[in-house]
This record gives sequence, C-alpha cells and structure tokens, in this order.
Amino acid sequence: MNPLLSALRAAVGAANVLTEGDLSAYELDWRRRSHGKALAVVRPGTTEEVAAVVRACAAAGTPIVPQGGNTGMVVGSTPDASGREVVLSLTRMNRIRSVDPDNLTLTVDAGCVLQNVQQAAEDAGLFFPLSLAAEGSCTIGGNLATNAGGTQVVRYGNARELCLGLEVVTAQGEVWQGLSGLRKDNTGYDLRDLFIGSEGTLGVITGATLKLHPQPAATLTAWAAVPSMDAALTLLGLAHRHLGAGLTGFEVMGRFALSLVPRHFPQQRVPFLQESAYGVLLENSDQESEPHARALFEKLLEAAMEDGCVTDAVVAENISQARALWHIRESIPLAQAQEGLNIKHDISIPVSRIPAFCAETDALLQREIAGVRLVNFGHLGDGNLHYNVQAPEGGDMQAFLRDQEERVNALVFEQVRRFDGSISAEHGIGTLKAAKLPHHKSPVALGMMRALKKALDPQGILNPGRVLPLAD
Amino acid sequence: MNPLLSALRAAVGAANVLTEGDLSAYELDWRRRSHGKALAVVRPGTTEEVAAVVRACAAAGTPIVPQGGNTGMVVGSTPDASGREVVLSLTRMNRIRSVDPDNLTLTVDAGCVLQNVQQAAEDAGLFFPLSLAAEGSCTIGGNLATNAGGTQVVRYGNARELCLGLEVVTAQGEVWQGLSGLRKDNTGYDLRDLFIGSEGTLGVITGATLKLHPQPAATLTAWAAVPSMDAALTLLGLAHRHLGAGLTGFEVMGRFALSLVPRHFPQQRVPFLQESAYGVLLENSDQESEPHARALFEKLLEAAMEDGCVTDAVVAENISQARALWHIRESIPLAQAQEGLNIKHDISIPVSRIPAFCAETDALLQREIAGVRLVNFGHLGDGNLHYNVQAPEGGDMQAFLRDQEERVNALVFEQVRRFDGSISAEHGIGTLKAAKLPHHKSPVALGMMRALKKALDPQGILNPGRVLPLAD
Repeated sequence: MNPLLSALRAAVGAANVLTEGDLSAYELDWRRRSHGKALAVVRPGTTEEVAAVVRACAAAGTPIVPQGGNTGMVVGSTPDASGREVVLSLTRMNRIRSVDPDNLTLTVDAGCVLQNVQQAAEDAGLFFPLSLAAEGSCTIGGNLATNAGGTQVVRYGNARELCLGLEVVTAQGEVWQGLSGLRKDNTGYDLRDLFIGSEGTLGVITGATLKLHPQPAATLTAWAAVPSMDAALTLLGLAHRHLGAGLTGFEVMGRFALSLVPRHFPQQRVPFLQESAYGVLLENSDQESEPHARALFEKLLEAAMEDGCVTDAVVAENISQARALWHIRESIPLAQAQEGLNIKHDISIPVSRIPAFCAETDALLQREIAGVRLVNFGHLGDGNLHYNVQAPEGGDMQAFLRDQEERVNALVFEQVRRFDGSISAEHGIGTLKAAKLPHHKSPVALGMMRALKKALDPQGILNPGRVLPLAD
Repeated sequence: MNPLLSALRAAVGAANVLTEGDLSAYELDWRRRSHGKALAVVRPGTTEEVAAVVRACAAAGTPIVPQGGNTGMVVGSTPDASGREVVLSLTRMNRIRSVDPDNLTLTVDAGCVLQNVQQAAEDAGLFFPLSLAAEGSCTIGGNLATNAGGTQVVRYGNARELCLGLEVVTAQGEVWQGLSGLRKDNTGYDLRDLFIGSEGTLGVITGATLKLHPQPAATLTAWAAVPSMDAALTLLGLAHRHLGAGLTGFEVMGRFALSLVPRHFPQQRVPFLQESAYGVLLENSDQESEPHARALFEKLLEAAMEDGCVTDAVVAENISQARALWHIRESIPLAQAQEGLNIKHDISIPVSRIPAFCAETDALLQREIAGVRLVNFGHLGDGNLHYNVQAPEGGDMQAFLRDQEERVNALVFEQVRRFDGSISAEHGIGTLKAAKLPHHKSPVALGMMRALKKALDPQGILNPGRVLPLAD
C-alpha cells in the first residue's frame, strides 16, 4: 500500500481519491493532444483539504497537477505519462461564497463553473463580464490560473482585471488568505497578480473575490463590411471615439474564414460575404436605453461609411438577429474543423501593427507553401488574432500537418517576434509551448521567472514542466 | 578617494554625481518628516547608465534609493541618516519615447513628470487618466513604483491598470526589456505587476508603456447634499447604474471637513453646508455630448432625490463652476493644515462597510479622546477614505500629536483590520509604515514577500528597509 495514497485518503476521504477505472476525463486534455496517466485523482471539498493534499504530496516529493474544468488549450492541467503525478481536481469546491452588491463583488470557490459565476452576478442584478466558449464547463479558478481573455476584453480586460483578491494554497500547503474586496490596497507586493496567469505552478487557487459591473440597459450588435485590415483599424478608432466604454466587442473575420461557415453550415447566412474582404462584428453595451444605443450605433456607422472604412453595415433589430450574428463568429472554429486539419495560433500584436503583420505574414506563407489558406479572425480590439493555417484545398491534410506544422509555427512565431507580439495571447503556455518559451523570452525575464518559481516552490512540486521547461 | 564614487562618475559623468552643497531636495521627504544624508545623489540620463550605477553599487554592496519627483507620502524615496545610501534620481530621464494612437499607447521614460505624460496623451487626441495632487512634480516611474491612485480610480483603476509594459533595471544591473504594448500576453509570470507597487525594492523602473483612453466629449461636475454615509452609498449605487463607465469621480466629504474650507478660505462657498451631513462631488465623463451628459446627470439626481438619498443638488453650468467645486475638495487638506496639526490616515474598506466603519470608529474615537474632531473625506467609489483626526478645538496641538498619535493610529488600524480594510490604500508603505506591516499582513503573505525580495534582490541593496522591515 502506497503511503501517499493512504495520506490522501485520510485527507479527503477514500471516495475522493480515484485510482481505478476510466479517468480520461482527468487525464486526457481538451484538445485530445495528450493522454497522461495519473498516480491518483484527488478531489478535495474544502480549502483545508486542498492544503492537506499539498502537504501530503510535498512530504512524498510527488508532483501535483491542479485542474479545474480541464478545458485548457495548451496541455497545462493533465498529468504526464509517468504515472507519478497527482491530479488535484477543484471541481467539488463549487460554492458561491458571498455576494456584496454595494461593493460590486462576488466571492466564490475556485471550482465554480464560469457560467454559474455569471449567473450569481445576474441574480444580484449585476454583471460579471468574463465570457468565453468553454464557459459551461471551465472553472473560475482555471480562468484565473490562465488569465483567460474572451470576447469582452476590449472593455473589461482579462481575468486579471476582474479579480480583486485570491485564496491560495502555497507549495508548502499553507493557506494564503488574500480574499480582499478592496479596490485600493498598497500594502506590499502584488501577490494576487503573481498567481494569476501562473498556470498552477506557484500555488493552487482555491477561492477568489471578483469585480462586478452594473448590467447594461441594452446590448446591440452590428455587422460591418470592411474592405481591408487597415479599414478595420480605422473603424476600431472611430468606435472607441463614438462609443467609449460602450464598445464591448470588436471581432474581425477574414473572408475565407467566413466563407467556411455557409460551406459547412448551409443554414447560416453571412452578411456581405461576396462584397468585402473582412467582416467586423461590433457590440455596443449601453447604460441608458436601447433607442440610445441604436442612435449611437447609427451615428458611428454613418461616420464610418462616410470615411469609407465601412462599405455596408447592418444593426441587429432584435436579440435573435444579434444571436445569429454572434453565431457566425462562433461557428468559424467548428467550420474550420469540418474543413479539415489546420495549424492554430493564438497570437497578439500591437493593434496598430496588425495590418502590416497580416499583409507580410500572409504573403510569406503563401510564398513558402503553395496553396496554403489562411483562416484569420480574432479580437482586433485587443490585438488578439486566431491566425490559423489551413492545408491547401484538396491536399493530404495529415501529411500537411506532419510535414508543415513545425515550419509554419516557426515562420509565424518569427513574424510575431519581429512585430513585438506574443506567441500566446490568451491560452497560456502549459506543456505545449513550454519548450518554445526560451526562444521568445529574454534571458533576463526567464531568469526572473525561474527565481520566482524557486522562491515560492523550492521543491518544484507544483505543475512541474508547465510554463517553465524543466532544467536539463 | 572612494572607489564607488569614481565608478559612479565614470558611469554617469562627474556633473551628475552630487555629493556636496544643499541636497535637501533629494534628502528631505515631501511631508518633511525625515531628513536623511546620502552618500551621493546620482542622476543617470539613460537606461544603460542606470544599469551601470546599479552594477557599481552592487559591486560595492552599497544600498540604492530610487527616487522620482520625491513627492511620496511615506518616506520611501529619501535616504536614511547613515550617509551610506546612494540616491538614484530618475528625473533626467524625461523623454516621451513614442506615441501609438492606433494602439492607444504611450511609451515614456520613468522620469517624465505626470503632467507631461497627460499632455503628451492630449497632444495625440487621447487621454491618460491618472490624476493626483502632485501631478506637476511627481514622475510616472514613482507613480508606478507606488501604484498611485488619485481621483479617477472608480472608472480607470489605479496606476497598475494603466500600464501595459515596463522597462526595469534589476538588482543585478541587468535590463529587463518588458515594454510591451500588448493587451493580451499570457507567456509566463506577471513580472510587470510585481514591480508595480514594490516601491523600488525589487528593481528600478526606467520606462513604461501606458494605456490611453479616448478623450471624453464632455465632462460635467455635480455637487449633492446627502444626509448620511448610508445615503452616500445609495447614491453611489444609483450613479453606477445611471452613468455606468461615465462615472469618473465620486468624492464624499463630511460636514466638519467642509466647514474648514470657508473658515480658512473665506472666498470659497460650500454648497448646502448647513443643511447636510455630507457633500458628494460627482463627475460624469460623456462620450457623446454635453447636453447628453447633462440630461443623464439630471435623471440621476432626480432619481436620487426621489429616493431621499440626496436632499439637494447642483450641476455646474460651465467649466469655471466645475473648477470651483473641485477646488473645494482640493482645499480640504490645505484648510486642515491651517486648522492645525492632525493625524492622517489613508485607508480603504470594502465600499459596502464604510457607513458602519465610520459610525463605529467616529464613536470610538470620540469616546476615547474627548473633543476630538474628524476630518473625513475620500474617494468613496474606491472605498478609500482619508480619515484624519484633528485635535480638540483650542487644545495644545503639539501635545495632542505627541501624546495621541500612536494611540489614534492603533485604534484606527485595529478598526481597519476588523473591517477587512487596508492601512495604506494609495500611499504605500515606505519607511513610515514598514514596522507596522507585520501586524497587518499574515505570516504567509509576509513569508512570500520576503521570499520574492530574496529571489530578485538577494544582496538586499534595493531600497532596503522600505516596505519590508529589515530582519533583526
């Protein structure tokens, strides 16, 4: 009998230490790129139990892989194949702890599903803006550990900007009680932001105090046809000036990306598909009223058409039209999957440099790989592009992926570097990109990261090899 | 000849190493609480020179005190009395490096005066929201090193939320080039936020990329008479709902604090002074137009008067009226100084708990110290109170300060702790509050802070004893 397993059973109860049967829900990553093998999956129900699990693992020198909804994109929360790592699943910790409407805050367990967090805010007459495709199954702890982005960043910021305080179990199994509801607190180093985005490598987030916003009185959606990426940038500037903080969404989509949607989902109609090189989805959240929102939107689109950066536009008349427009945007990844295998990138570039980046990188790839097709879409307001590369029409897709993935990645990432961009805008590093990190961070930055890791987790038991590659 | 001085002269030129004459501009802190003695004041002109200075000091084991405009409130950027510390003044590094309007960013040297940063944004047709009393002489590097707050936090956040990237010289004299203009970048630990607010104890900020916003089309100011702190809180909730992101200022001021203004500056008239327990200054920044801003303000104030949380209100008709209202708010600290010595606190409390905090703490102090007078004002929207305690009318103020300061601090800080607040909302810790920190942070938090300090500055040469008290 493994003494660590006994200690874990003592900490959380035997029923919450899983070692047998099909554990693929915990061992297989979301994109099905890696199927690991856990020593055990441990499911604590309280912060104290999490601390006890960490202490037991620390005593045994056993690595811990914290896991939320297991919806990550970069293999950051599933075990490796060694059978030596313990998966620490937070999903049993799913309580809404408290709501404080006058303070505009909500305090929750880390294992709360994002949709339930959004709902708790709504039940209090308020709004929690974090929104992303996996919201029905991802957890807020995972969102914070990876500093999730999503569609509302242009107005409300990333997960980092939506969090006021954390509760964290340290690598030593102590509890840091940092659940502050304060908007101003300058008493020492910013521990909160160090844990946010550290992907479970510095501590285990067990609870969070989140920042809420007033619910908008009306949210309207528009679709604009724009002739070029330059024009999309001009439209973005006009939207900032006309809508200010009302601009809560700005998604740009290239024509080829859009053309895949009706090709694979014929019931969907994409506005202005033939006439324009790009479509832009705009969202305007208004504090006042729907007529006011509509008047502002019309004024903006008139100015844009006068400028020439928009050639045609439509404002959704009702919620179902708005949903249909968003549905086009959300269908692109699915349509792309139907079209076949492809190489995905989640990059960011300073907003002002995106037109030049796209023009150069598109041309470069088309020159290097004949017939390659570019599925380009993203959150232009944040400089975040999902710059995906699809095999040539009718080609052998498996062969394309096998032969070209490394080369395409190298070409794209080198372009990203030239344009002062990031190779991971919102998905993180995990295992998938850890080996690439040293090529994209300066030795000074990497040295500081290693020093911080060593300072907080000297034993190296928290999610080892994720984010920072293991030393040789 | 001191070999360190030779090395410093070689690094920055002899003219920029000051050792003689009146150095009180660098050695005396802003509130004139501490007059230290520097080994030398060194004034590098470039990032490379800063790095050379740090390397020279590191080689000699000599402590460095980074300094910007020397306007800090907590004795964090002046030398101690030992004559052993080198003051590293950043004020010669005052270039606006670049503006990128399409990316809504501005990149500057750390030594730029805040007002010049604001002006550079305005010159580009944009807006940098950080605003505070010392803006004519404080530097952006100091603002970031102390995570400055100010009057616009309710809408735009603290300095932390206004910064996208940093350039930092490490304790080893290396340059971390982290001047990112990216809004999304999840490639590793959040080094930026670790340096922001660390008060020069982890690295020396030499440059920053700042986040700009569109200029509002109109900014209106109103003054409301409110009968109680509870009513002020209700008004804040209504303002959030009616104005959304338009609410850019919400300052509450108690009647006694307000009464000091006409007492010492008779030309100033405070609206509704006799009729109401509190005055609230509201600012509404509108993306659309002045008539629209006015209509929204009137609707809000009507709703508030109907509710009863406001008994009377006035909206400034023009800019000079708006300035006069802000001038009252800004005159409170000066009027308070005219009234005599007092004990200042810069605290924050969760917004929802402020009415109970004030009621309890006011009563406690009045019970403990007969005749004590409370000068209470602050940024209610952020939960930040300047909760100041004035000697009884006509009493011996020197004696009051001498006999009561420690006791008053202890009483107020204990209340802050009971209400889950912070003993330093926006001013930082510096030397002044370093000894108090261990009583207000958990051992786990302090342990992590010490580990981080040791990881990044193992020699302990950067601003030693500030923020973290020196170990015994």
